[in-house]
Amino acid sequence: MIENDFYSQANHGPYELHDIGDLALEEGGTIRGCKLAVATHGRLNEAGDNAILVPTWFSGTNKIMEQVYVGPGRALDPQKHFIVIVNQIGGGLSTSPHNVPQPSNMARFPLVRIGDDVRAQHKLLTEVYGVESLALVFGASMGAQQAYEWAVRYPDMVKRAAPVAGTARNTDHDFIFTQTLIDAITSDPGWNGGWYRNGGDVHAGLRRHAALWAVMGWSTEFYKREIWRGIGFSSREDFVVNFMEGYFLPMDPNALLSMAWKWQRGDVGRVAGGDLAVALGRIKAKTYVMPISTDMFFPPSDCHAEQKLIPGSEFRPIESQCGHFGLIGVEQSFTEQIDRNLRELLASEV
Amino acid sequence: MIENDFYSQANHGPYELHDIGDLALEEGGTIRGCKLAVATHGRLNEAGDNAILVPTWFSGTNKIMEQVYVGPGRALDPQKHFIVIVNQIGGGLSTSPHNVPQPSNMARFPLVRIGDDVRAQHKLLTEVYGVESLALVFGASMGAQQAYEWAVRYPDMVKRAAPVAGTARNTDHDFIFTQTLIDAITSDPGWNGGWYRNGGDVHAGLRRHAALWAVMGWSTEFYKREIWRGIGFSSREDFVVNFMEGYFLPMDPNALLSMAWKWQRGDVGRVAGGDLAVALGRIKAKTYVMPISTDMFFPPSDCHAEQKLIPGSEFRPIESQCGHFGLIGVEQSFTEQIDRNLRELLASEV
Repeated sequence: MIENDFYSQANHGPYELHDIGDLALEEGGTIRGCKLAVATHGRLNEAGDNAILVPTWFSGTNKIMEQVYVGPGRALDPQKHFIVIVNQIGGGLSTSPHNVPQPSNMARFPLVRIGDDVRAQHKLLTEVYGVESLALVFGASMGAQQAYEWAVRYPDMVKRAAPVAGTARNTDHDFIFTQTLIDAITSDPGWNGGWYRNGGDVHAGLRRHAALWAVMGWSTEFYKREIWRGIGFSSREDFVVNFMEGYFLPMDPNALLSMAWKWQRGDVGRVAGGDLAVALGRIKAKTYVMPISTDMFFPPSDCHAEQKLIPGSEFRPIESQCGHFGLIGVEQSFTEQIDRNLRELLASEV
Repeated sequence: MIENDFYSQANHGPYELHDIGDLALEEGGTIRGCKLAVATHGRLNEAGDNAILVPTWFSGTNKIMEQVYVGPGRALDPQKHFIVIVNQIGGGLSTSPHNVPQPSNMARFPLVRIGDDVRAQHKLLTEVYGVESLALVFGASMGAQQAYEWAVRYPDMVKRAAPVAGTARNTDHDFIFTQTLIDAITSDPGWNGGWYRNGGDVHAGLRRHAALWAVMGWSTEFYKREIWRGIGFSSREDFVVNFMEGYFLPMDPNALLSMAWKWQRGDVGRVAGGDLAVALGRIKAKTYVMPISTDMFFPPSDCHAEQKLIPGSEFRPIESQCGHFGLIGVEQSFTEQIDRNLRELLASEV
């Protein structure tokens, strides 16, 4: 285990750690005493029909989901719903490369798939919280991958699904983008095959990784309109260094690599012998597919093709000038569109 | 000077080398005895009104322009036109970091701007070929940057302009993309501040550079439709390695860096005190602005904004599934659209 002050209650809390026992992984490894970092808001009602699951995205934790999407008067309202935000495995707060004891630590951390996360979350919800039905699974980016996986694996349990800016099966184009993120880190000699002393040894790789996100994560419109001014930056360069590099530098490099590997291989078709149409055809949840209009790696065209395979689903693209990172809620219009769609979805009969 | 077999007559010829004398550069350096590598097709007619200038794109030479865009029966027809293809400075065939003697070689190669290329080409055309009027300047990508620069700098000489998949002023988003290309090379310890023994020392950086192009140069549709199958590859990975890495590996790293620096700073507004609208307003050429529909870094929206500033111009987007690299002519429909537009443009009264 290596010290990393970033993954703390101070930065991301309050959250609870739940040990769900050993988790046998789809790729063959086992996480012994798998711990999930969970933040809950509101209470499960007597009917048990107000639970909402919110998985997390690449590099994100429960905290950003709370800040952007949860609150009184919002579509995800703790006064109405029991909202359970579960940090993904490998994300830094739940069981992750830097916080497990040797010998399975760091470069030896086992390969984790989206399906592993979803099965772990299912165990958590049913055994710890007594949740048997989900009014909604709402997730963005890698959270959308998990939302799709939930709707396919547990079609009777998931009543509604809202995958934002993500896909059910990762595309080839997205795979090679994610590979550049991986290579930016692993090409840093300081990474040392995963056996660095601390994340600072890999700062050059993390900075290049951040620069790739600066290109693919936002959009040409974001830079043209200098939307970064509105969030406190004085120039493009100031933004790239002090927002993008500043955001990723405190994170554990192996955690980012664990998530990136998982992200690359997101594919609900695995549960149907590789047949995406069959897998998506199993979904019973009322599903709103919500890509972001300017997203460069989960573009609306890719999401639309999948939406057509989901019975009774609707295509609800979100207009944004910010590209994929629109999902951090820089634009008020973005969160308004999300809330409008989620309110309508939550009000729909299922 | 270092050996590089790639930049040869065998690979790119026939081309002629013309020494246009000393070239004082906008950034303050001087290229002594600047040599331009030029390929011509057809002959200048007596009226002197059939000359077409074709500058080159990043990493491209006269050869690819000939293969994709020039030929009997094509819009650019050597039987009708005098076609002059000029390799850009720093591109490897014309004066470039690896082919000049010390002390101005390799890492000491001076900074070159689009305007330097255009002034050098003007000298070449007028003094070597006796060309006083251009029926058309046709360029794609960095060639489009040069086409715009030509139309702004020499408005009376350029009768028609066809910038494909490029901009008159580079965008912030494009700048940071290009920076990732630069950083992929310079972060390779083998680059050694520009003082490698040969390009092979920098192969890891060149491979990462190629991978970034694999993401941004094509499109999600290109990979989804597996268009790489049609050009002889058996898998996505086979394509990325044997096409993308194979394409860039033989090139000189410093040449790529010289072009990338130039590309980042393309801006016709420099000749009008920074005012893009004033600069583009000076254009007298009949101009067809032709972005590629799926281009990820010169998207149609950016090109459309510029087109509106050019008097009498037309917005003629090219439909393609291939992203920016549509310009290498993988799709027959692409070259058909280009030819249709160029024929119409060449037939227009000016």
